[in-house]
Amino acid sequence: MNRLDAAFGLVAIDSVSRNEAQLADFVESRLRANTELEVERIGDNVVARTTGRHATRLLVAGHLDTVPGDVSQAVIVDDELRGLGACDMKGSLSVMLELACDSAPCSVEVSWVFYAREEVTRAESGLLEIAELRPDLLVADAAVLAEPTGGAVEAGCQGTMRVNIELVGTRAHTARAFTGRNAVHRLGALIGRVASYEPRSVSVDGVVFTEQLQVVSVDGGVAPNVVPDLARCTLNHRVAPDRTREEAFSWLRDFLGEFVEEGDVAVIADWAPAAAPSLSNDRLQALVALTKMPARAKVGWTDVATFAGFDIPATNFGAGDPLLAHRSDEYVTASELDEFARVLGSWLA
Amino acid sequence: MNRLDAAFGLVAIDSVSRNEAQLADFVESRLRANTELEVERIGDNVVARTTGRHATRLLVAGHLDTVPGDVSQAVIVDDELRGLGACDMKGSLSVMLELACDSAPCSVEVSWVFYAREEVTRAESGLLEIAELRPDLLVADAAVLAEPTGGAVEAGCQGTMRVNIELVGTRAHTARAFTGRNAVHRLGALIGRVASYEPRSVSVDGVVFTEQLQVVSVDGGVAPNVVPDLARCTLNHRVAPDRTREEAFSWLRDFLGEFVEEGDVAVIADWAPAAAPSLSNDRLQALVALTKMPARAKVGWTDVATFAGFDIPATNFGAGDPLLAHRSDEYVTASELDEFARVLGSWLA
Repeated sequence: MNRLDAAFGLVAIDSVSRNEAQLADFVESRLRANTELEVERIGDNVVARTTGRHATRLLVAGHLDTVPGDVSQAVIVDDELRGLGACDMKGSLSVMLELACDSAPCSVEVSWVFYAREEVTRAESGLLEIAELRPDLLVADAAVLAEPTGGAVEAGCQGTMRVNIELVGTRAHTARAFTGRNAVHRLGALIGRVASYEPRSVSVDGVVFTEQLQVVSVDGGVAPNVVPDLARCTLNHRVAPDRTREEAFSWLRDFLGEFVEEGDVAVIADWAPAAAPSLSNDRLQALVALTKMPARAKVGWTDVATFAGFDIPATNFGAGDPLLAHRSDEYVTASELDEFARVLGSWLA
Repeated sequence: MNRLDAAFGLVAIDSVSRNEAQLADFVESRLRANTELEVERIGDNVVARTTGRHATRLLVAGHLDTVPGDVSQAVIVDDELRGLGACDMKGSLSVMLELACDSAPCSVEVSWVFYAREEVTRAESGLLEIAELRPDLLVADAAVLAEPTGGAVEAGCQGTMRVNIELVGTRAHTARAFTGRNAVHRLGALIGRVASYEPRSVSVDGVVFTEQLQVVSVDGGVAPNVVPDLARCTLNHRVAPDRTREEAFSWLRDFLGEFVEEGDVAVIADWAPAAAPSLSNDRLQALVALTKMPARAKVGWTDVATFAGFDIPATNFGAGDPLLAHRSDEYVTASELDEFARVLGSWLA
């Protein structure tokens, strides 16, 4: 079976966040077929480790879940696999499974981590579930997180903050709208402010991070003939590693200014910290050399920050164009999977 | 029992649209206590008619339902009844019940109509349900709709159009928002356009109508880390009697202009026609005289338009400040109820 067909097999199994059980079953059974691996199932997460006596242990991790979508549209066209999760990140998962099941001799020990619920709030993360129940399984000298990076090393990651906002108004009959204050109209002005945001770019450890700010959801309305007195939205703010949670929220409140008034609500609903690059680490330097491409900054949040929290030097490196992640037209190509397999295999050999 | 206490009894019975059964039961049992009335129950609607031989039949109608809210907050403070539906329109319903149950001699026949689901889409209207099943019950020479008018005659009514809009975008990862197009950000711009609307005023048959345009609900969002590719909103447009459905929608499309693009959706979800004033009718002229106030235009949509559709001259006349309708702080006063009872009783006598 070629690599596109193997990846198609993973894409075909629906694993939208919180529905990873079936894919975890599949991964677990594949890994158990290699009797040289010690395989552990923890909830909908699967960890497989070599158990030799090499001094160095490298860890390769990837998440099983996808954002919402329809897997039935998946298709292979020429050398492209198109479909939900093809790029983020079942193409890379498929290569991970292939290398984990291959018994080629290595000069290091390897831990393979397949985990659930990365695409939802951090509190639900399967990686944190493993860390809580079996922290020993995550011990390593260096780690690769196989998020799509176009085959380059993407170092560090940005923080991500979810902020819930509620704007109030005064309810009224729509025929006499002037007697009330439309909270949805106020929300329109706040959305306009967010849409006007000009991204801030900052260089950290020699790589450049560019922040982002988006309204990701809106909600509001009482009845068709009522001026609504409440409107809600959720913002997502991507934060460079030079700012803390508090600094980022303080900046956001200043930026929103008059659009959030006294009596309104603006609260942090979720925060995942940023991670500075770890490119001084020898193992990660070796990985950069193998890719034959310069390292660059990771823009999105990834669990590299979680490994940073465990004091494990980690970086992002995976198949697929990161610009396609979470897009309905995402895909991964056969040559991307081949190159990812070559570099990752060499790094672990 | 004084009139505020009687009205409180109606307010205390929750009758948010589609939940009018209990209030209809109460009204029906009160009306049946007057054996001179012929009482008919049709779904959650109740019609009671005198059955004498007078040549003229007048009709008084009111809706049983309220917009969403909490009836448990209702309270009488001094001469005010405060609570959901106090003004729109259980104060007037209570006076209607009182006059219907009073067997004072009249020189006309009277039909009392209590109907369900006025505050939701027109297709669900209890008045249309009666018209379909028992059109004979609605025959009259003139009609009063007891919507809150501050004790004046408010003539005619505006049309009301509900328009559903869907704006599309391109889904993307929020860390790389520049690769997508945020449909909620587009919605913010459209809301801004609607919020900038300057109401049009127009004189029809000597009374001035002022149009309105509001966003009454918004909805959109995929996941916290996804740039949304779809955002929805609903607009409510109040239309003066000089414009048809098609003229009003054409104006709206022009007004929204570039904010609704090819590929987006803008459709009329609901339309209730306007009604021109019927002030040349003798009976309605007599009612204006009894109020001792000049007639003015009704701004909001009411079932006066439904009676206009049946060729029955009709007007709005009821207790309570129309500016309080659908507000969470609505109320009605004892003197408003007394004056409404005086004028309506005289008109029917």
